[in-house]
Amino acid sequence: MPSRRHYTLTASCPDQVGIIARVAGFIAQHGGWILESSYHADEGDEENGAGARYFMRMEVKAESLPFHLAEFRERFRVLADDLSMTWQISDSAVKRRVVILVSKQEHCLYDLLARWQSRELDIEIPCVIANHDTFKSFVEWHGIPFYHVPVDPANKAAAFAEVCRLYDEVGGDTMVLARYMQILPADFCARYPGEIINIHHSFLPSFIGARPYHQAYRRGVKLIGATCHYVTADLDRGPIIEQDVIRIDHSDAIEDMVRYGKDIEKAVLARGLRYHLEDRVLVHANKTVIFR
Amino acid sequence: MPSRRHYTLTASCPDQVGIIARVAGFIAQHGGWILESSYHADEGDEENGAGARYFMRMEVKAESLPFHLAEFRERFRVLADDLSMTWQISDSAVKRRVVILVSKQEHCLYDLLARWQSRELDIEIPCVIANHDTFKSFVEWHGIPFYHVPVDPANKAAAFAEVCRLYDEVGGDTMVLARYMQILPADFCARYPGEIINIHHSFLPSFIGARPYHQAYRRGVKLIGATCHYVTADLDRGPIIEQDVIRIDHSDAIEDMVRYGKDIEKAVLARGLRYHLEDRVLVHANKTVIFR
Amino acid sequence: MPSRRHYTLTASCPDQVGIIARVAGFIAQHGGWILESSYHADEGDEENGAGARYFMRMEVKAESLPFHLAEFRERFRVLADDLSMTWQISDSAVKRRVVILVSKQEHCLYDLLARWQSRELDIEIPCVIANHDTFKSFVEWHGIPFYHVPVDPANKAAAFAEVCRLYDEVGGDTMVLARYMQILPADFCARYPGEIINIHHSFLPSFIGARPYHQAYRRGVKLIGATCHYVTADLDRGPIIEQDVIRIDHSDAIEDMVRYGKDIEKAVLARGLRYHLEDRVLVHANKTVIFR
Amino acid sequence: MPSRRHYTLTASCPDQVGIIARVAGFIAQHGGWILESSYHADEGDEENGAGARYFMRMEVKAESLPFHLAEFRERFRVLADDLSMTWQISDSAVKRRVVILVSKQEHCLYDLLARWQSRELDIEIPCVIANHDTFKSFVEWHGIPFYHVPVDPANKAAAFAEVCRLYDEVGGDTMVLARYMQILPADFCARYPGEIINIHHSFLPSFIGARPYHQAYRRGVKLIGATCHYVTADLDRGPIIEQDVIRIDHSDAIEDMVRYGKDIEKAVLARGLRYHLEDRVLVHANKTVIFR
Repeated sequence: MPSRRHYTLTASCPDQVGIIARVAGFIAQHGGWILESSYHADEGDEENGAGARYFMRMEVKAESLPFHLAEFRERFRVLADDLSMTWQISDSAVKRRVVILVSKQEHCLYDLLARWQSRELDIEIPCVIANHDTFKSFVEWHGIPFYHVPVDPANKAAAFAEVCRLYDEVGGDTMVLARYMQILPADFCARYPGEIINIHHSFLPSFIGARPYHQAYRRGVKLIGATCHYVTADLDRGPIIEQDVIRIDHSDAIEDMVRYGKDIEKAVLARGLRYHLEDRVLVHANKTVIFR
Repeated sequence: MPSRRHYTLTASCPDQVGIIARVAGFIAQHGGWILESSYHADEGDEENGAGARYFMRMEVKAESLPFHLAEFRERFRVLADDLSMTWQISDSAVKRRVVILVSKQEHCLYDLLARWQSRELDIEIPCVIANHDTFKSFVEWHGIPFYHVPVDPANKAAAFAEVCRLYDEVGGDTMVLARYMQILPADFCARYPGEIINIHHSFLPSFIGARPYHQAYRRGVKLIGATCHYVTADLDRGPIIEQDVIRIDHSDAIEDMVRYGKDIEKAVLARGLRYHLEDRVLVHANKTVIFR
Repeated sequence: MPSRRHYTLTASCPDQVGIIARVAGFIAQHGGWILESSYHADEGDEENGAGARYFMRMEVKAESLPFHLAEFRERFRVLADDLSMTWQISDSAVKRRVVILVSKQEHCLYDLLARWQSRELDIEIPCVIANHDTFKSFVEWHGIPFYHVPVDPANKAAAFAEVCRLYDEVGGDTMVLARYMQILPADFCARYPGEIINIHHSFLPSFIGARPYHQAYRRGVKLIGATCHYVTADLDRGPIIEQDVIRIDHSDAIEDMVRYGKDIEKAVLARGLRYHLEDRVLVHANKTVIFR
Repeated sequence: MPSRRHYTLTASCPDQVGIIARVAGFIAQHGGWILESSYHADEGDEENGAGARYFMRMEVKAESLPFHLAEFRERFRVLADDLSMTWQISDSAVKRRVVILVSKQEHCLYDLLARWQSRELDIEIPCVIANHDTFKSFVEWHGIPFYHVPVDPANKAAAFAEVCRLYDEVGGDTMVLARYMQILPADFCARYPGEIINIHHSFLPSFIGARPYHQAYRRGVKLIGATCHYVTADLDRGPIIEQDVIRIDHSDAIEDMVRYGKDIEKAVLARGLRYHLEDRVLVHANKTVIFR
């Protein structure tokens, strides 16, 4: 995983002969040094008429190219159009702007701030937004603005309008629901497709909705899990980015499950967020390709 | 895990002060040497009126007691009745009689026979019953009788009557559905409660029913699993004995998932069956206590 | 895992008939309600002359006993002496006093403080001691005193004398080396047997000593790990409390391994510390019995 | 993972700009359809003077190319030489010929034969060679020749000369030591570099040599493992292909560890062998690149 400045190109297009040759050829012809590259051919699904599709991700050393992103975009567009590509390219020197939404639980927040503090997550956190003020001074100690936006069940619309406003104002490009515990309105979800990342405290699709550990306890499962996914209007049914589980047994009460679960939640969220920030996630047909 | 001859006592009763003292006192008073013992207090569930319940399992060195099981049972009954206990005791010198049901998939069958062959599973396999004759000569090579009982969808009742007859005739005490691929009739399930063990190829309660790998593929999960459970009339909803998962990614087609899944299925089935055979599983309220 | 006030008795003694009966009998005779109990018989090792030994741990509801710990200790001593027992009993209402030693890495410190903040770790942290002042204001924000004790290679003895003094002065009963990065002097280790817990960044006994991730990288292992252990004068060779691993592959540079490793380190340290604090760890012959 | 006939090209060369473009360009120019492709740039190691090196693996649909392997090889050589490449290409229609060596333990043998039987491993097994005749009739039941070559400690050379002769005679291209329990002579190892795969019953580099479970038991580790590696003259120090671990605890005797270990051994061997057979393993500097 290169720490030198690089451009990351992600793309997908209908599969055909010669895609890698043409894309890698374009980069080579300008002297581009490919640091890392990954490809995936999805065969499609005859049942629902989906055709074969090709996915790719390339990291190119920035200094090896004779031009910057604007020119890259202009030149590459011709080839991309010819391949009917959906694509984007980002510059590792431009830090992502991640807004964190929390409620009253600390584990994901502490974990994310520790990673930010050590530059393991090399991002900007322009602000933290919370529906409770529990972590105000903790967040501010880190030099990060904290906004308390209470969510009144009788008037959720106003609260989420304010969250929108803040997120847009600070120029966020990623919103992380770090155990935010509020269901986002459908129009809110629709406004930021592929930008909102949630951590759900169950191994989806098991135990959708409220109190998943209670559901798991009652069913007597032997492992519990957590799922990091993009938020869509369809509750807990967005594209899954990452999942993991931990073993429990009969001696674990619901409180124990909650405690174990926190460790899985923060680990899964951190991994999922990292994949997202490094442009390792390509979404297609409500599923994800993850180029680790 | 002692290999010397031992008696295994498993019991559960309403919780109260002094249970261990009285049970361990009874055993000590007859000179019984406890090799291994496990206890679990379940606090009950106020929501559904279930009271606190106590579970236990003890292995006692056979030679340390001055009497055999019949007399143990007689003497212990007084105490057990006084504690309103549900209990049983078994003798490790009496081999369990496990009947295996298979269809056309080999992985669980090979795995179980390898464990039986090396005496890792120290059981009798009085016969294998299959709805196809694929493994007839393989099973017979091991010196185990093989019965081919085809299941005609038009007349399942007759087929299962024959399976019953064979199982009863050979004196089976445990029936293992080693990817048997047939749904058992409700009255069949009811006849052998806590005796029929199935391996389901998903991490239950996700993906109940047919083609779970196809369901998992479509949902885009990042881990797939398997579940070993007791069979009840309620499809794939019996008490869970053991579960495990394995990581997959976007590059895995359904056939890859099937292949990975086999490894999890046979491992989970082997562990679950072992817990059952060593009387490590106590069932209560459609859940299991597993004293590992 | 009970949250009600309870006493935790841990003990080991030479194995013989009737140990559980006598100990559980003693508790029952005073009306003690056993919440959780675990037993382990170690068969000994003929090769080195170690005899069979019995280990146990019991949690007794405090309010169910008619006396407090002092009287329990007095009364129980007779029985314990008769069984040649090594034993102790603790009161869950008396919080453990855990001193954390850190250097410049944040991950374990953040993780422990998050758990302390949410009362998942229900302990006192009388102070944090560090050989760098990196986390001074972070720790103090939590209301915890921070002592900066630089370790000068030319005069380690003075530094560790100061650490000792602080630890004794604040009444610490557990010292956690949360990636402290200093080798403790032998006499220091000897002074606090079974009190100092370290997290080593390898799956011991692989890669003892300095720069284990570099060693792992060079050997080309496919999993890296972390080990939580009691510190003894023998570097990285004390009794192991907990271990875990994480998968890596050829694409992971040493920096990636360090990053993955942090997640394992903090998880393993948190679990190991919890076992220690709940008196779930019994040490014998440089190994641990962990009653989970 | 494509099941259609394909060619698999694996290669490595000094890193430079344009490698992918040139190789993918060569394939595209002949109409080659790339089913799967993976790349890895190793930055080298300044400490020991190793330069940056590039590794790749491509699967090309056989029918998409206008020529067969012989012509591919001839045409590709020019480009490969120009890039100073080490490379090979194989045809999925040509089955690999895997000779299995066993002793008296059954678990790996049963496991491999089950996978072969179901065509999960789509290979030829021209023979099984064993130093005991335990599995003669079992192997022969599968229609596979079985050779009993006893290894007399006084005359190992003669035994291994016979193993060589048999392996060469049946045209083996891969030799699997499925818990063969004999140390191969150095000249034997040197004769088949990258062809001999062993499963070692520990998580290397911990517990090299004899009786690793005894070593693990004495050290009190909390996880035990297995390692699949290429055999070199340096005992248990060849390039690692795959590893895994399983959790144990204080209650597990050495026999339990052996039993758990078997499950890990067979799973790790099966995965490692599969990577090898599908040309997913590239060896460099006693380490492996595994393109999963």
